[in-house]
Amino acid sequence: MDTEKPVTACLLIIGNEILSGRTQDANLSYIAKVLNEVGVRLMEARVIPDVAETIVATVNEVRAEFDYVFTTGGIGPTHDDITSECVARAFGVPLILHPEAKALLEAGYKPGELNEARLRMAHVPEGAALVKNPVSRAPGFRIGNVFVMAGVPQIMRAMFDGIRHELKGGRPVQSRTVACHLAEGTFAKDLGDVQGRYPDLEIGSYPFYRQGQFGVSLVLRGTDAARLDEAAGDVAAMIRRLGGSPIEETAT
Amino acid sequence: MDTEKPVTACLLIIGNEILSGRTQDANLSYIAKVLNEVGVRLMEARVIPDVAETIVATVNEVRAEFDYVFTTGGIGPTHDDITSECVARAFGVPLILHPEAKALLEAGYKPGELNEARLRMAHVPEGAALVKNPVSRAPGFRIGNVFVMAGVPQIMRAMFDGIRHELKGGRPVQSRTVACHLAEGTFAKDLGDVQGRYPDLEIGSYPFYRQGQFGVSLVLRGTDAARLDEAAGDVAAMIRRLGGSPIEETAT
Repeated sequence: MDTEKPVTACLLIIGNEILSGRTQDANLSYIAKVLNEVGVRLMEARVIPDVAETIVATVNEVRAEFDYVFTTGGIGPTHDDITSECVARAFGVPLILHPEAKALLEAGYKPGELNEARLRMAHVPEGAALVKNPVSRAPGFRIGNVFVMAGVPQIMRAMFDGIRHELKGGRPVQSRTVACHLAEGTFAKDLGDVQGRYPDLEIGSYPFYRQGQFGVSLVLRGTDAARLDEAAGDVAAMIRRLGGSPIEETAT
Repeated sequence: MDTEKPVTACLLIIGNEILSGRTQDANLSYIAKVLNEVGVRLMEARVIPDVAETIVATVNEVRAEFDYVFTTGGIGPTHDDITSECVARAFGVPLILHPEAKALLEAGYKPGELNEARLRMAHVPEGAALVKNPVSRAPGFRIGNVFVMAGVPQIMRAMFDGIRHELKGGRPVQSRTVACHLAEGTFAKDLGDVQGRYPDLEIGSYPFYRQGQFGVSLVLRGTDAARLDEAAGDVAAMIRRLGGSPIEETAT
């Protein structure tokens, strides 16, 4: 049984456009899946508006509570991009022009194009290390346990892929999925019994509707492959006992 | 200028399946758009795991901070569905079998099918009012300023459509969108000046890539249609002045 203390993370999705319903977040699930692979557990995500006081207070709250904090959004050149200055305020350090970030931007713009607004993107909190942006140059940064990334999914992914090796995780979280066409209420009690026998695993029950049929995916998560296989076997046996046909799925 | 105090809301998305990256949330944007229509501002959303202490603490934190709280997920019949009991704990009241909820379930199952697990779905915190579920019977509920709904999008939407008339909002939030193919860095300073002249509006700048072209949507939000039209005109004029072609969009 795994008694290792899990390494935890919180994601801050910063942007009015998510809270207004205009834009659908596409970063949470990508980040979550990579974190599973490196053994870091995403324990919470918050969507917060482009309001300085909210960003500063939230960054300070969650960086104390979780091992890692990732932020997406608000690091562009316009007036509503206030994440960098808010993170600087949260850490109590000045926002400074980073020479390497400035050089990166200079290399990408024609003479005269690197105006004051664009130069804002070369400012980071004092003491921060740059997070590379292979897509559009303007970097993110890391300060303490907080990684600040772009909101545009293509850029965020490229940034995140570049920093994943810096994360010190525990054992990777693996999963097993067994689906069936029984109703949840039919197996709920028995599934609870399986969960009771495997307190080291997390067993979830997720109804779905596809190809014209209702069904339920039973998802088992944990860090011990042998325990997962054993528990997945118990779940399959339970389904058969209740008159269903277990379907092992590779997708998690 | 609108000096009315905004009516605020927080959404709690409860479920390990969102935090693991397995399931993409589809409820936030629906709820946000309806809230805009009824004049309620979604100020924050949190995704939290199926962990009782986290749910109880978070419900208590946000119900004190916002006018309305909506929760999605965790009200089914399986062991990982713990939202109802956690909300009861948060309010310091017992979880009781609601006679009307029981009758609703009884009407939908064949004799013998309404087992103990399914009866869990007829339990609500004492003092709660039911939220109807026209899709699959098992109701949500409202207690105080907290509305508890299903996580399955079809069911959540049906529940939310049934309660929206109960929400006492302020003036509905409207928006105007003007797109262009200028780079953000080109207009950032001027757009900041426009924002400075309209402190009662919220102006956001959102890059996009579609039909093979990069562009930016400038979105103006506020409660005063005349001010929005005036500011959108200023934004369009700014785009023309900088050599671009403003594109008015109806989608927000």
